[in-house]
Amino acid sequence: MSTVIDLNSDLGEGFGQWRLGDDEALLSIVTSANVACGFHAGDPTIMRRVCEAAAARGVAVGAQVGYRDLPGFGRRFIDVDPAELVNDVVYQIGALDGFARLAGTRVSYVKPHGALYNAIVRHEAQAAAVAEAVRRYDPALPVLGLPGSVWLRVAAEVGLTPVREAFADRAYTPEGTLVPRGRPNAVLHDPEVIVERCLRMVAEGVVEAVDGTTLPLDVRSLCVHGDTPGAVEIARRLRSELERAGHPPRPFSVPA
Amino acid sequence: MSTVIDLNSDLGEGFGQWRLGDDEALLSIVTSANVACGFHAGDPTIMRRVCEAAAARGVAVGAQVGYRDLPGFGRRFIDVDPAELVNDVVYQIGALDGFARLAGTRVSYVKPHGALYNAIVRHEAQAAAVAEAVRRYDPALPVLGLPGSVWLRVAAEVGLTPVREAFADRAYTPEGTLVPRGRPNAVLHDPEVIVERCLRMVAEGVVEAVDGTTLPLDVRSLCVHGDTPGAVEIARRLRSELERAGHPPRPFSVPA
Amino acid sequence: MSTVIDLNSDLGEGFGQWRLGDDEALLSIVTSANVACGFHAGDPTIMRRVCEAAAARGVAVGAQVGYRDLPGFGRRFIDVDPAELVNDVVYQIGALDGFARLAGTRVSYVKPHGALYNAIVRHEAQAAAVAEAVRRYDPALPVLGLPGSVWLRVAAEVGLTPVREAFADRAYTPEGTLVPRGRPNAVLHDPEVIVERCLRMVAEGVVEAVDGTTLPLDVRSLCVHGDTPGAVEIARRLRSELERAGHPPRPFSVPA
Amino acid sequence: MSTVIDLNSDLGEGFGQWRLGDDEALLSIVTSANVACGFHAGDPTIMRRVCEAAAARGVAVGAQVGYRDLPGFGRRFIDVDPAELVNDVVYQIGALDGFARLAGTRVSYVKPHGALYNAIVRHEAQAAAVAEAVRRYDPALPVLGLPGSVWLRVAAEVGLTPVREAFADRAYTPEGTLVPRGRPNAVLHDPEVIVERCLRMVAEGVVEAVDGTTLPLDVRSLCVHGDTPGAVEIARRLRSELERAGHPPRPFSVPA
Repeated sequence: MSTVIDLNSDLGEGFGQWRLGDDEALLSIVTSANVACGFHAGDPTIMRRVCEAAAARGVAVGAQVGYRDLPGFGRRFIDVDPAELVNDVVYQIGALDGFARLAGTRVSYVKPHGALYNAIVRHEAQAAAVAEAVRRYDPALPVLGLPGSVWLRVAAEVGLTPVREAFADRAYTPEGTLVPRGRPNAVLHDPEVIVERCLRMVAEGVVEAVDGTTLPLDVRSLCVHGDTPGAVEIARRLRSELERAGHPPRPFSVPA
Repeated sequence: MSTVIDLNSDLGEGFGQWRLGDDEALLSIVTSANVACGFHAGDPTIMRRVCEAAAARGVAVGAQVGYRDLPGFGRRFIDVDPAELVNDVVYQIGALDGFARLAGTRVSYVKPHGALYNAIVRHEAQAAAVAEAVRRYDPALPVLGLPGSVWLRVAAEVGLTPVREAFADRAYTPEGTLVPRGRPNAVLHDPEVIVERCLRMVAEGVVEAVDGTTLPLDVRSLCVHGDTPGAVEIARRLRSELERAGHPPRPFSVPA
Repeated sequence: MSTVIDLNSDLGEGFGQWRLGDDEALLSIVTSANVACGFHAGDPTIMRRVCEAAAARGVAVGAQVGYRDLPGFGRRFIDVDPAELVNDVVYQIGALDGFARLAGTRVSYVKPHGALYNAIVRHEAQAAAVAEAVRRYDPALPVLGLPGSVWLRVAAEVGLTPVREAFADRAYTPEGTLVPRGRPNAVLHDPEVIVERCLRMVAEGVVEAVDGTTLPLDVRSLCVHGDTPGAVEIARRLRSELERAGHPPRPFSVPA
Repeated sequence: MSTVIDLNSDLGEGFGQWRLGDDEALLSIVTSANVACGFHAGDPTIMRRVCEAAAARGVAVGAQVGYRDLPGFGRRFIDVDPAELVNDVVYQIGALDGFARLAGTRVSYVKPHGALYNAIVRHEAQAAAVAEAVRRYDPALPVLGLPGSVWLRVAAEVGLTPVREAFADRAYTPEGTLVPRGRPNAVLHDPEVIVERCLRMVAEGVVEAVDGTTLPLDVRSLCVHGDTPGAVEIARRLRSELERAGHPPRPFSVPA
């Protein structure tokens, strides 16, 4: 068995004078870059730089679309009218696509950010709005999300290609959902454990749940973080272990 | 002699709950819509609505790009680093182009707004930045501006198609520049006078300057305003008089 | 019986180039001005102008505090961390108080706006956050709200003075809650009916519910709107009828 | 001779998720904290935290007022209408004062930030606007600025107390102006040199200009930076050397 896996990470999350995360380091590790589009983070100059750096390394450019909330970094649920959310998402994809084109590539997938990502695990109307936005912009764009989410279901229903992802450093319940942040052991920190779990997901399609049972978990992408030096180091090691095990990461999307 | 003339106007200049101008009325008059892109005015929902309404009427969609300044409506000079201004402009064009595509058309020209429009009449570095943005986004996009401006000169130098416009309701100096707002008689209000001057520009390629001399003024587009009921009425009358005189307005641009 | 009643209205809800409502007209009608503080609407120049005009007419200045959401006009619920909401509210009161002082008065009460107003009818943590902000800023400031709301209850619990208001143009359920917008007859339009209901509230302390039953409704302030010419006319008439009936409106608050 | 000197630094310059500089370290070094007020940086939660931490250490809280320009960090000149600039400044001072009061202190001085600081070295109308704002808010508030600037002159003319500052790490021309950034040797990096120059300014009231001549430089405050670990270390050393030399830093302002 030789499952193909993608590594994705959030990039370009600074704004103006402010920086967040180590974009350069991550771009040498991941195969898909979720680029902030200016609504929760990101500004035009950062967006361009990340697109150019991603294109130069063959990293796929994805639109990381979020609520319009710079002060809250897109991490607060906003009860946006779904009809307006469609347009907020189209705006973000279009703006990023301009920079992707300048860099000789294209936006090749869409991933919701933060509170929007979490909301549409269950929120039918907002999930449908984001799916509608992608479908209207370009129905060929695949979308990243949580296995079992309303979001991936409605995306598939309107004809989009849903792509399931796992979080490298998060614990799972026996039901296959993420252990909520704030619960004990919700986030994994031991690099050994993280890398071994991810290798098992890729090679065997399973993960050990928080109660010790073994769960099927069939994903095409692993989300890694880069907001601390430790996180970058774990991501780097994960990549090299995946390569060593015969699963060199490859993007799930193909730029048009 | 039968010069072809375009009528352009600023549209979609509301934001959220706020409205400005009568978009619906103007879309039945003009042939080119300068659509605000969210930096000085305009939000995604307004942008989409204007694009759809313009496309439905065969009105060309142009990107009205401005400084990032909602509180100042883009009417205050900002000393933006030209390298960042390039990216601010690309962002705005890309965002609007997404909505234009949804509406079955494309952004087919670019016109700077407000203080940016005024600045690049003389500001070489900012003018070059805007031109560079358009060229990198799509060198086939024509650009609107003031005859004799640095902006149109540098746009031509990088290979863009400069399109000269006149303002239907503004007075001209004997040197062919606009009489600055604030000076007496800078702005014309008499519909008779406005319409007659415009007809003469189109038919004869001249305008009477503020001192009574006759100036050559060779333009391809006339800018009309719609922020007051009176302004809409003047624009409507101008259009019908142009038609009656055998110069039915036609856009200068062709969507891709 | 001669109940004292206050008339309050939302004012200063423009931003930059944009205007909303007829501030001048309302300032000659109401006794309390809920002034937007820049988070959902309002900018420093508008805030100053409204404070000066209110002070000149003896109208009380209240801080209308909202979510930080200019694009949504504060009408969308935002799941703000309550610890941050405290600070968002203090910021808004402090900013407005600067202008009130310049105008020779002070912020003399606080009223939440839009989605925040609606949320804290039930949302304990956000209600407590707004109450905490007012208490920490100045515990002598009374607060306006809906009778029966969590907001007025928690405000009273921390020692603030709760002031109950009714909406002049809204229908009530037999339980004394507002008929939700969107339901038939939720909003009243007939000036005769509106004025008569308000007079009865003031004189008798009751209102007729949507099912015809008579409800006790003991309020110290009536909220009137001014976003349409019709609304201004109704407010003006309500004021003159209240005066004629021996209940000339008077503010519930006293500037420090 | 035992001149009293103040150490001031910019603090609270993060926004939402983003941080800039080491506020904690600087608050144990400086005697005056220039706190960002939300227009170029700073959000309500950061403002409150800095005010509380400053008050707890006896550090004076000053309003660092800037242009409304989060994307540009207040470092770009904006041609704001002076009548509006007055109000933008009042808004910022009022908002910060709310948090200062919560922390048991008051805003006790005002210092312009970034491009506004630089503009009003020469820009009469904007300088007068900032001075007018401070005078209207509280004429007892002293203002920090560059010796010889239009800003300090017009502030004095309207009755404010001008306080002259020097920059610990900047070189001076023989005329007493700062060597513009970008010129060679404009910024000093050697801690030895910086500390020695500052000690000489304090003890002798002179500084060595870039051409080796000795300039009189009579200042009451020294501005230190904290955006790099090296900068914090220099500030810390400067403070301890000033103490050792018998010039322990003391604030120039006194909270009301």
